[in-house]
Amino acid sequence: MEKTEKKFSLDALALFTKNIFLAMGCSEADASTATDVLLQADLRGVDSHGIARLSGYVRLWEAKRVNAQPQVKIIHETPSTAVVDGDSGLGLVVAPQAMQVAIDKAKNVGTGWVSVQNSNHYGIAAAHAMMALPNDMIGISMTNASALVAPTFSVERLLGTNPICVAIPAGEEPAFVADMATTTAANGKLEILQRKQAAAPVGWIQDKEGNSTTDAHALKNGGALLPLGGDKEHGSHKGYALGAIVDIFSAVLSGANYGPWVPPFPAYVPMPTGMPGKGIGHFFGAMRIDAFRSAADFKKDMDQWIRRFRQSKTVPGAAAVLIPGDPERQFEAIRREAGIPLLPPVVEDLQMLGERFSIPFIMP
Amino acid sequence: MEKTEKKFSLDALALFTKNIFLAMGCSEADASTATDVLLQADLRGVDSHGIARLSGYVRLWEAKRVNAQPQVKIIHETPSTAVVDGDSGLGLVVAPQAMQVAIDKAKNVGTGWVSVQNSNHYGIAAAHAMMALPNDMIGISMTNASALVAPTFSVERLLGTNPICVAIPAGEEPAFVADMATTTAANGKLEILQRKQAAAPVGWIQDKEGNSTTDAHALKNGGALLPLGGDKEHGSHKGYALGAIVDIFSAVLSGANYGPWVPPFPAYVPMPTGMPGKGIGHFFGAMRIDAFRSAADFKKDMDQWIRRFRQSKTVPGAAAVLIPGDPERQFEAIRREAGIPLLPPVVEDLQMLGERFSIPFIMP
Repeated sequence: MEKTEKKFSLDALALFTKNIFLAMGCSEADASTATDVLLQADLRGVDSHGIARLSGYVRLWEAKRVNAQPQVKIIHETPSTAVVDGDSGLGLVVAPQAMQVAIDKAKNVGTGWVSVQNSNHYGIAAAHAMMALPNDMIGISMTNASALVAPTFSVERLLGTNPICVAIPAGEEPAFVADMATTTAANGKLEILQRKQAAAPVGWIQDKEGNSTTDAHALKNGGALLPLGGDKEHGSHKGYALGAIVDIFSAVLSGANYGPWVPPFPAYVPMPTGMPGKGIGHFFGAMRIDAFRSAADFKKDMDQWIRRFRQSKTVPGAAAVLIPGDPERQFEAIRREAGIPLLPPVVEDLQMLGERFSIPFIMP
Repeated sequence: MEKTEKKFSLDALALFTKNIFLAMGCSEADASTATDVLLQADLRGVDSHGIARLSGYVRLWEAKRVNAQPQVKIIHETPSTAVVDGDSGLGLVVAPQAMQVAIDKAKNVGTGWVSVQNSNHYGIAAAHAMMALPNDMIGISMTNASALVAPTFSVERLLGTNPICVAIPAGEEPAFVADMATTTAANGKLEILQRKQAAAPVGWIQDKEGNSTTDAHALKNGGALLPLGGDKEHGSHKGYALGAIVDIFSAVLSGANYGPWVPPFPAYVPMPTGMPGKGIGHFFGAMRIDAFRSAADFKKDMDQWIRRFRQSKTVPGAAAVLIPGDPERQFEAIRREAGIPLLPPVVEDLQMLGERFSIPFIMP
């Protein structure tokens, strides 16, 4: 924890957040859902996607780019698929409803697949994919986002950090939950280096001419994040392909905006011109384990899989081979007890937000 | 093309290959299918997975690890899912049948998802995923493979190069076909460096102690391939997670062998002890485009997506931003006309194979 951080209880932050969403005009149920999704990021250690973004969501609502009372509806469906129109709602509200449609379809026909148009930023991908777990289902969640990433050989930013989450239940072991941006490093990690005035590793970013750089500020000066792999020699065409698949499943399949036309999160950034679709797009999947084999047999094998990997001999200097989801679960265990640390600029931002709505922000 | 290569016509290689499969006891239909799948690798420039492996398949059959006359069957299903038992058949034969099950289910309920146990190496992932394209469906294909890859922080090899292919139809533009190993570099690229006595880029492999190395021979000396990303700082935990997802979807979901227990391709390598499942595993998916939106609208947007990316301004020294599938399609266009180049050791190996079965190998 950085020295100047202060810790806040989850309950106090949740109460404040919910009151802000209510003040925006969200229904009681939607405000609860949005709060729960948003704060899962803080609990799981993904500080860039949690309460630090609350004022950003409010600004989108003020700019009339978020509808606080959306009528989320299915506009096309088959027994195993649907396209959901998010009616410009908060992604934090639209996404759980769309994921629930996928889960309901999986109950009926084994799997469910839902592509979403006309939505907004949905928080962390894991919050939605993990809804599948208590149903003994595998959950899949992905979303596109505004363009910050240059495809291999491109100077231009054409893709978002487009994350993929796959959540897989186990038996006695905790679930396998892989939640990853399809870039080498997420933007949040770059922001940490910017604050420290530190250099970025080679392979994270390029400058505005498309040259590799270690300048952590290059992204703000017309540069771009790089796809997972970093450069062609290290497989960046694979990271680019993964980000592209997320974009196409989320937006071309639903009728949302894709590529360079995805609306930006900051409300002060103008909308792209010539937008081909509606809002941003997401894609969700749910697969019932027992649509393939008995859930008990599957879980026994998942436990063996997880234990074998965890027990693997480690390279020099490493404590353990981790299972995807381990770091986030460790964060959650600590933060539920000890509270959620917030940096002073985030606290100040929340205090100002509270003053605007006459909702006092709690002190640590 | 390396100087000593000679070129062979596709038809001549196909005739020889089919006769070998027939000599193994494959049915006429299975021999045709296996030949078609195998040679798609040579056509698309994936020389490591094509006819160069033919004698390897024969040796697996001789070792009684491949059944030339499998009864491939569905052992569990729902409207959108199935588990297929490959009956120890050639993956080249089992995989297209399983993919066809996925396509048939997609015709009925929008999508189809098939996990396969008791199979063998299935050639290139793209051969199966691309079966979806003429049906106006998105195709997905993945397979596990014997362990050559060390997860992040592991000295031990616990995963195969576990490829993922996603094939997406377009309108006037050629289809988007991403086919990628979940490692930084495929083993075939390492073999090229070994032949040239050249160094491998940092991030491709580690030595037997788990240290990063540029020694292209490290893999043969107890080292391991690295997951896409190379090291933790460059996102190797994401490549590891992707390889793990392929392993779990292909094998834990079907009841095949997973992790370090996947049977090796070379027949002389002993089988792992304590194998938890049957054979190797694959996973296939098919999604009907019009289960989401009109195929015509989707294809119009895919064309715009592809053209926008292709027209992107390039970094210094790059000719163009490519769409996944471009390089393989360029290979195919050239090789269908000019023939398929084979290295002398491959030609010698095929000649010996021909002598064994009294099937003369054609001269270029």
